[in-house]
Amino acid sequence: MGMVGGGKGAFIGGIHRMAAAMDGEIELVCGAFSSDPERSAQSGAMLYLEPERVYGDYRQMMSAEAALPADQRMQFVAIVTPNDLHFPVAEAALGAGFHVLSDKPATLSLAQALQLRERVRDSGLLYGLTHTYTGYPLVKEARERISRGELGKIRKVVVEYTQGWLADRQEDLGNKQASWRLNPAQAGVSSCMGDIGVHAANLAEYVSGLNITEVCADLSAFVEGRELDDDGSILLRLERGAKGVLMASQVCVGEENALSLRIYGENGGLEWRQQEPNTLWLKWADRPTEMLRTGGAYLGDLAGVNTRTPMGHPEGYLEAFANVYMAFTAQIRAHEAGSDKNLRSRDCPGIEEAVRGMNFIELAVTASGSDIKWHKFEQH
Amino acid sequence: MGMVGGGKGAFIGGIHRMAAAMDGEIELVCGAFSSDPERSAQSGAMLYLEPERVYGDYRQMMSAEAALPADQRMQFVAIVTPNDLHFPVAEAALGAGFHVLSDKPATLSLAQALQLRERVRDSGLLYGLTHTYTGYPLVKEARERISRGELGKIRKVVVEYTQGWLADRQEDLGNKQASWRLNPAQAGVSSCMGDIGVHAANLAEYVSGLNITEVCADLSAFVEGRELDDDGSILLRLERGAKGVLMASQVCVGEENALSLRIYGENGGLEWRQQEPNTLWLKWADRPTEMLRTGGAYLGDLAGVNTRTPMGHPEGYLEAFANVYMAFTAQIRAHEAGSDKNLRSRDCPGIEEAVRGMNFIELAVTASGSDIKWHKFEQH
Amino acid sequence: MGMVGGGKGAFIGGIHRMAAAMDGEIELVCGAFSSDPERSAQSGAMLYLEPERVYGDYRQMMSAEAALPADQRMQFVAIVTPNDLHFPVAEAALGAGFHVLSDKPATLSLAQALQLRERVRDSGLLYGLTHTYTGYPLVKEARERISRGELGKIRKVVVEYTQGWLADRQEDLGNKQASWRLNPAQAGVSSCMGDIGVHAANLAEYVSGLNITEVCADLSAFVEGRELDDDGSILLRLERGAKGVLMASQVCVGEENALSLRIYGENGGLEWRQQEPNTLWLKWADRPTEMLRTGGAYLGDLAGVNTRTPMGHPEGYLEAFANVYMAFTAQIRAHEAGSDKNLRSRDCPGIEEAVRGMNFIELAVTASGSDIKWHKFEQH
Amino acid sequence: MGMVGGGKGAFIGGIHRMAAAMDGEIELVCGAFSSDPERSAQSGAMLYLEPERVYGDYRQMMSAEAALPADQRMQFVAIVTPNDLHFPVAEAALGAGFHVLSDKPATLSLAQALQLRERVRDSGLLYGLTHTYTGYPLVKEARERISRGELGKIRKVVVEYTQGWLADRQEDLGNKQASWRLNPAQAGVSSCMGDIGVHAANLAEYVSGLNITEVCADLSAFVEGRELDDDGSILLRLERGAKGVLMASQVCVGEENALSLRIYGENGGLEWRQQEPNTLWLKWADRPTEMLRTGGAYLGDLAGVNTRTPMGHPEGYLEAFANVYMAFTAQIRAHEAGSDKNLRSRDCPGIEEAVRGMNFIELAVTASGSDIKWHKFEQH
Repeated sequence: MGMVGGGKGAFIGGIHRMAAAMDGEIELVCGAFSSDPERSAQSGAMLYLEPERVYGDYRQMMSAEAALPADQRMQFVAIVTPNDLHFPVAEAALGAGFHVLSDKPATLSLAQALQLRERVRDSGLLYGLTHTYTGYPLVKEARERISRGELGKIRKVVVEYTQGWLADRQEDLGNKQASWRLNPAQAGVSSCMGDIGVHAANLAEYVSGLNITEVCADLSAFVEGRELDDDGSILLRLERGAKGVLMASQVCVGEENALSLRIYGENGGLEWRQQEPNTLWLKWADRPTEMLRTGGAYLGDLAGVNTRTPMGHPEGYLEAFANVYMAFTAQIRAHEAGSDKNLRSRDCPGIEEAVRGMNFIELAVTASGSDIKWHKFEQH
Repeated sequence: MGMVGGGKGAFIGGIHRMAAAMDGEIELVCGAFSSDPERSAQSGAMLYLEPERVYGDYRQMMSAEAALPADQRMQFVAIVTPNDLHFPVAEAALGAGFHVLSDKPATLSLAQALQLRERVRDSGLLYGLTHTYTGYPLVKEARERISRGELGKIRKVVVEYTQGWLADRQEDLGNKQASWRLNPAQAGVSSCMGDIGVHAANLAEYVSGLNITEVCADLSAFVEGRELDDDGSILLRLERGAKGVLMASQVCVGEENALSLRIYGENGGLEWRQQEPNTLWLKWADRPTEMLRTGGAYLGDLAGVNTRTPMGHPEGYLEAFANVYMAFTAQIRAHEAGSDKNLRSRDCPGIEEAVRGMNFIELAVTASGSDIKWHKFEQH
Repeated sequence: MGMVGGGKGAFIGGIHRMAAAMDGEIELVCGAFSSDPERSAQSGAMLYLEPERVYGDYRQMMSAEAALPADQRMQFVAIVTPNDLHFPVAEAALGAGFHVLSDKPATLSLAQALQLRERVRDSGLLYGLTHTYTGYPLVKEARERISRGELGKIRKVVVEYTQGWLADRQEDLGNKQASWRLNPAQAGVSSCMGDIGVHAANLAEYVSGLNITEVCADLSAFVEGRELDDDGSILLRLERGAKGVLMASQVCVGEENALSLRIYGENGGLEWRQQEPNTLWLKWADRPTEMLRTGGAYLGDLAGVNTRTPMGHPEGYLEAFANVYMAFTAQIRAHEAGSDKNLRSRDCPGIEEAVRGMNFIELAVTASGSDIKWHKFEQH
Repeated sequence: MGMVGGGKGAFIGGIHRMAAAMDGEIELVCGAFSSDPERSAQSGAMLYLEPERVYGDYRQMMSAEAALPADQRMQFVAIVTPNDLHFPVAEAALGAGFHVLSDKPATLSLAQALQLRERVRDSGLLYGLTHTYTGYPLVKEARERISRGELGKIRKVVVEYTQGWLADRQEDLGNKQASWRLNPAQAGVSSCMGDIGVHAANLAEYVSGLNITEVCADLSAFVEGRELDDDGSILLRLERGAKGVLMASQVCVGEENALSLRIYGENGGLEWRQQEPNTLWLKWADRPTEMLRTGGAYLGDLAGVNTRTPMGHPEGYLEAFANVYMAFTAQIRAHEAGSDKNLRSRDCPGIEEAVRGMNFIELAVTASGSDIKWHKFEQH
């Protein structure tokens, strides 16, 4: 693979590389790690890349790689830049004939996401989106069990994603990520919903199997001087009469990365918490709560193929991330072999999730600014 | 004390009696346990009461007790009936010169609550309301710490109270409590908000020290055929710019009595969960999360006087309930001694909480039925 | 009931009184709260006792109460003194015709315990011992499930009881309980094993249904200058080939009252922790771990009768203690009615547990001082 | 690196490869994955190795690789075979001039371990041992804090490692790992102590900074027909007057991989549990228990360099394993650069831990079979 963004010092680039490397199936062969060619070169050197395949410009990378013989050029591009570059880089990659695996949110706006969907369709290439949390084995197990009807008709979905890292003015304290995430030009219309709320919405829909149909939102910028939200609470309505709550915050002091999901149906409930991701709780009306654990022999096959170690050897965020890479590369292989990329075992968020995500972000901002209570989640 | 309601088979009457008995300071001397005189007599006999002080009618009890010499008659009335009787019994007790300790919600409507406040003011007597959860030592500790400013200015309040016992049609299956709680004539305008949402609202205001000022509500009756809500989610705005979320549900299958509270300020956060009430979490930006435990020497004096056993000997719901009784009887003693009933150590929910509670319940129902997003919590 | 010991300031006396009062079935009618008559009188006054039934000497109490008409005198004596008085007071009470409910350990030595057993047998009276932790509903549930064979043949029993309160020289800092617990004249041959190790041994035998048959012990006095142990670890062998470990400590800084029990059989395991007593874990080879909760409809009847509040309303130490009182008074009633006192619902530790407890304490001390590895737990 | 053992189907080989690959610093270049050349070749092909560097015999691999130019041959050998091959393979590797990173236990016997130490010393090469659990960032933090004296003089060390996977006769059910672990010819004198007890002993010594000096052991083979232990409990004495308990078991049904460590000093205690490895508890006499979390800014630099993701993104077993690889490769680089390999940041278990481990295993077995209580842990 090739990488755009993720030069030294950037957090998420390293995460992608570790996740990609873990299974020994993916090799980083080129990169445009920074728009500053010197920085890019330094990063490439640290990563043992051949200097001639380290680029100072992503457009240059696309054309140079496309010019290589098919068995030598990169097969896909991982995009790990700030939000504003996701779309142009993806567009360039698709244009040059490369599959794309992109960080979320997919673009800077819904309009861009819709354009991107056109590009993907036209290109016939693959597009993956790193909604990493769907890579956890027990998240997949949860989805499977709901889809099999174990909880009965779903009534209630509660999803939370709280962090505390923006509780003070980090953007003034030299925190680079804080700076761009709170800058509309780089982040888009939202900080909190754009960064983590969109993960929460995706997780809720992925596991429940139900799309959000209406929202009633109240976003906040608790820290003075911010143009974008750093917190938000949203009442949800979902398909088939389900309701829910989505809470996201970057100012909950002392919270780390507290993503959690609870879903209740007519017959049972489930609970999963990202910070202890190897436990899934199933709750019942008339029998003891069950604690399911990663690696358990009683889990389904989908959890199984997404698990690398035996029970009791905790798997974490990097393994979940590696599962996204594993699924995406399985899709590429299927694509090349002309077989079905949509097997359950190749399940990876894609362009439809990209569009829904941007739709959600813009809707949350619009709804929050409105006196009207409910706002429809229009299908695009 | 005397008791109205709580005959054999009733859940909450026994709870009150155990809580009242625990400290050896309160004696049950009379009761009108049922409107059926025979049932009342049976209950009284099981409780070792003198038969002549077991009444078949609460009005009769008020007049008969009032007629006894001052040192023999009951000092206060505990009201443990279904909601519809709270107001008439309280009115009768006050009219006959007795202090009142009532189950929540205080009345069937806000109008009744306002009338009740008049009666209390006019009588010069004491009125207590069993918002039991404020009786836990660590709830008091949480309130104290916020009030001292340890968390800084409060930004966010998240309170949840979920249960699963009404996830199916218990009201058709002979469950008496289910029957009256879902019957508007006995329960008032709400089941879920009236029974548990009001506890959550009270807890949030008690600990944060901030009143709710606006709500945006979405209540549901998930189980078919119900006239009253069995679930609800509410966006909150509170004083001084704080925001929050209140979730309550009686249909979250597998949840027992999952009341929890999280509050975040500029400098720190806290978390408390009723099902493990002896732990209070304090969360900080730059140092480890702290786990405070009931009985800890580092706790304040208010937690101390509300604790009965040494650290590590878990205290539970009955002890919290006994703390409400302890505070209320301390108020009675202060009242009789002409001293200040408002000492922190005599802190017990009263008539103002009664009015706010009924206000909250009606507002939640009104707001939920409206297309307007925000509804003001008017002061009464 | 009457009480010996437990004057104001004493911790355990108040606990007994709250536990006894909770169910409204037991009335404290007299007491010898201190060997100082004035202190005793003060304590009695605070407890609203008639002054003439507050005694300065326990012998005096026995004779005075015995001289009262049968329907007026106390029915049993609760002994809450330091260890050295347990035996003489029990002996006096039995001699005067009163049932005895005693704090543990039952006596100062095994020899005394054997004598006490004779007295109990000769008197035909009832003797109960407050191994409080067996009063928790889920401890009873655990015992029932093992007894029904749910875990299969038991292989392993791990019981721990750790505290930190004696990690420094509390006995020099005016801590009264520390002073007598570390004083051989008042405490007997052991501090740690005598106070808490004996609870752990009792709990292990009670739940597993297996007696300890051999021990290999290593006791310590970590804090300089102590004559008695403040810590100990013991390898256990139990009936039917089971093995185990018992750890007890009073110097594990930061531990509160961390009693826990884990038992593993051929088919399953269980775990219970006193500090969160409303949860019992069942573990299986091939299916998810189950979390059983106090109040669950799936629990047995014995757990049920020992539970006072609905699921999710936490019960604690005082309720467990009240269960011991409840069972003991049920035995008294059965005794008086001439019916069987040994019903499961009247299950309360008694004189056999008293003898085994003293046996355990002395054996632990002997074994620890020996170079021989295994020491038999002789039957007495 | 090159690998011996770990062909397809073997659990631990894949773990090593993922751990080695994660940081992009180590490349697998050759292997002798099986003694069956065909199976070895298949495994090599699946791993994208050049066919000529996939060997059917480890001796052949050593000589062939040694014959390659220095910049092309492997730099070190990872040994992931059953125990009986650890020593001969390590010996061959050292003999051919390659550093060795070996699975534990290091050899089949203490005698072999002592021989191996000679070989390592004579060769001047590096030897690492995968006591993986010391690779967790919070294990390192725990060690650092104790070493800085934060807990005061250490009194008590409790280490447990329980699993349930051998609770029934897996060795008869086609479970390959069970077969060799219970076979003395392949596993050595112990199953439970040799596989997991030795990890526990290492962890206890590593974190406490205290060597075990005496043991009193009781090992068991609970499942009928086993020649080797499947469970054991050991009383420990450590340097400077500390005492402890080590429990290990493979028959605790329902336990996964429950390694935990608790250490208490005069001033504080700590607790760490491998199944939730991102939490470290610090316990104090007079202030709240603290919950330290991986990634916390308040952690030391050693924890920091062993952490890959931001706080709240859970790290797991593979990351701990990768830390062992990272430290070992840092040692190799330092070795090659002629700089100090013993920097704290290059901390990796080595040949001394190998000798102590084999010493521990043999001592545990000897002590368990003896009627003498205490057995000295002789220094070798």
